[in-house]
Amino acid sequence: MWKHSRLLELLKLEHPIIQAGMAGGVTTPALVATVSNAGALGTLGAGYMTPEAMKEAIEEIQTLTNRPFAVNVFVPEYPKATEREMKHANELLNPFRDELGLAEEPSPEIDKSLFENQIEVIKELNVPIVSFTFGLPDQEVIQDLKGEGIILIGTATSVEEAIVNEKSGMDAVVAQGSEAGGHRGTFLATNEGVGTMSLIPQVADAVKIPVIAAGGIMDGRGVCASMVLGADGAQLGTAFVTCDESGANPHHKEAIVHTKETETVLTSSFSGKPARGIRNTFIDRMEGHEHELLAYPLQNALTKGIRKEAAKQHNPEFMSLWSGQSPRLSRQESASKIIMSIVAQAKRINS
Amino acid sequence: MWKHSRLLELLKLEHPIIQAGMAGGVTTPALVATVSNAGALGTLGAGYMTPEAMKEAIEEIQTLTNRPFAVNVFVPEYPKATEREMKHANELLNPFRDELGLAEEPSPEIDKSLFENQIEVIKELNVPIVSFTFGLPDQEVIQDLKGEGIILIGTATSVEEAIVNEKSGMDAVVAQGSEAGGHRGTFLATNEGVGTMSLIPQVADAVKIPVIAAGGIMDGRGVCASMVLGADGAQLGTAFVTCDESGANPHHKEAIVHTKETETVLTSSFSGKPARGIRNTFIDRMEGHEHELLAYPLQNALTKGIRKEAAKQHNPEFMSLWSGQSPRLSRQESASKIIMSIVAQAKRINS
Repeated sequence: MWKHSRLLELLKLEHPIIQAGMAGGVTTPALVATVSNAGALGTLGAGYMTPEAMKEAIEEIQTLTNRPFAVNVFVPEYPKATEREMKHANELLNPFRDELGLAEEPSPEIDKSLFENQIEVIKELNVPIVSFTFGLPDQEVIQDLKGEGIILIGTATSVEEAIVNEKSGMDAVVAQGSEAGGHRGTFLATNEGVGTMSLIPQVADAVKIPVIAAGGIMDGRGVCASMVLGADGAQLGTAFVTCDESGANPHHKEAIVHTKETETVLTSSFSGKPARGIRNTFIDRMEGHEHELLAYPLQNALTKGIRKEAAKQHNPEFMSLWSGQSPRLSRQESASKIIMSIVAQAKRINS
Repeated sequence: MWKHSRLLELLKLEHPIIQAGMAGGVTTPALVATVSNAGALGTLGAGYMTPEAMKEAIEEIQTLTNRPFAVNVFVPEYPKATEREMKHANELLNPFRDELGLAEEPSPEIDKSLFENQIEVIKELNVPIVSFTFGLPDQEVIQDLKGEGIILIGTATSVEEAIVNEKSGMDAVVAQGSEAGGHRGTFLATNEGVGTMSLIPQVADAVKIPVIAAGGIMDGRGVCASMVLGADGAQLGTAFVTCDESGANPHHKEAIVHTKETETVLTSSFSGKPARGIRNTFIDRMEGHEHELLAYPLQNALTKGIRKEAAKQHNPEFMSLWSGQSPRLSRQESASKIIMSIVAQAKRINS
């Protein structure tokens, strides 16, 4: 089954397995390089990184592997919030700050040159593959990167979004089902998500570019099932959060390992965009206030201090514990072992 | 792949494909018999049927096929509603009745002997296979049916529910993912559903009885993917709603064929229990009133007249247009052709 994948040729991989570009410190250079060295595709989740931090991480990855790797960036948005909206959003968060002993966040500043500077670093350091979340960049950026020979991967959560990805010039598209942990890549769709079993064949029927399945995939069964459904490969996020090389907070790893498949929930309360995480006190208390949150990335900036301090105080109840719907399949071992297990399981399935 | 399925032996089938026991007139005797004659398992959706109607339908099925078929029944619940709750629930529905020219529904009477009488018909007519939705019947009923040599299939929407099914003596369990159209079989879980890609491997790891995947499965890709994930077979509902032998209202069939994968939604507004259907005016207007609905089956009884009259008046906006999240894969042809296509596609995938 592996042999027939166009994705292996496009990305120069041994295995059609992509480690998702999770932002927020999960994707250490060690994780990215370990995954790439195992013949899969490691991805640096650079969404929230400064160009300097990004540069440092990419250079470290390049010392650790000669294999292809990817960098994931977030297509920027610049929403506005009135003083009043800002005040109210802060009021909702102040009880958490009080409990943590934090002062109110100053009005967040959004760095409007961040994305542009991230793209410059990507070009400067000859990053071979770039993936986008939250929509598509301008044609200028797309053509610029393609001109440099960089392979581009977009993200879609619906058939329509996949078609828009293809039309924009993406070389491949991640089709993200509703099982997926962390942020939904949605940029056109308005619903809460389509399950991976439904999404993959409908997307595969609609586009000619390689489709990468995401959402609930944790092992060889999931990777093979994705390919049977019409995908050319699979992207795994949660499966790598708990691994040895992951930079996820130990409380986050522990939470995933002890969570049931019914205990995750979609919430916009941390960032202003829907994301799947393990239900905790923060999510519970913010429930019902969806319309009072600031838009992404403003809400994200407002909750940043809370999440950071909660981690410092070992309080997982106020942290964002992103997880997909397959936590029972999580494993605490090296990323290379996870990939070896997937490949071994796939061989058994295909034999 | 087919050859290894324990389900084929248990249910005496050629193909590990089950046509879901959709209630409400979809599963005509012609549909059930056509599916069973094609080597798959047809199911009469008898949930809402009187014993007399059920008897008539089963006898007709038995004249049309000598192959195994199943009957699906709903495990009963007897909720109470106060006068005030009833009045308020009716007030929410009266605008729809006014538009249709209907009088207010009288207080619904729940026939508390319905389930018992349905079980009697099943025994009397030697139905070979029975499936349950909305939980599990008493041990007395289970042991009684097993004593008659009847094979029992339960429904689960979580790992815990699957384990309870196994412990109760079910011979197999349908694991219903969040993509599924129509009613969720949930009886213990409290979340909105786990995607099929996540649910199947986690359930398969937790129980020893055969697992039947459901939710978003429409073709050979879905059936094969289910089995790769660890299921022993697949149950398809929406795929058979649009077929020639289905008794679904033509507006319902048309709606599925023209729906996008993002246009279905979970709603409790029709019946008091969450079910996935195509978003329409009824669902939109009832949104936000979830806590004012009566419990199932009281709410179902209250909306019955509206749904019936809307169908008569060719008004799909007030009908329950159940559909899973893969409507783009729907086909309007004979059920036997649908099964032949699945088998042919599965052969190509496995070659």
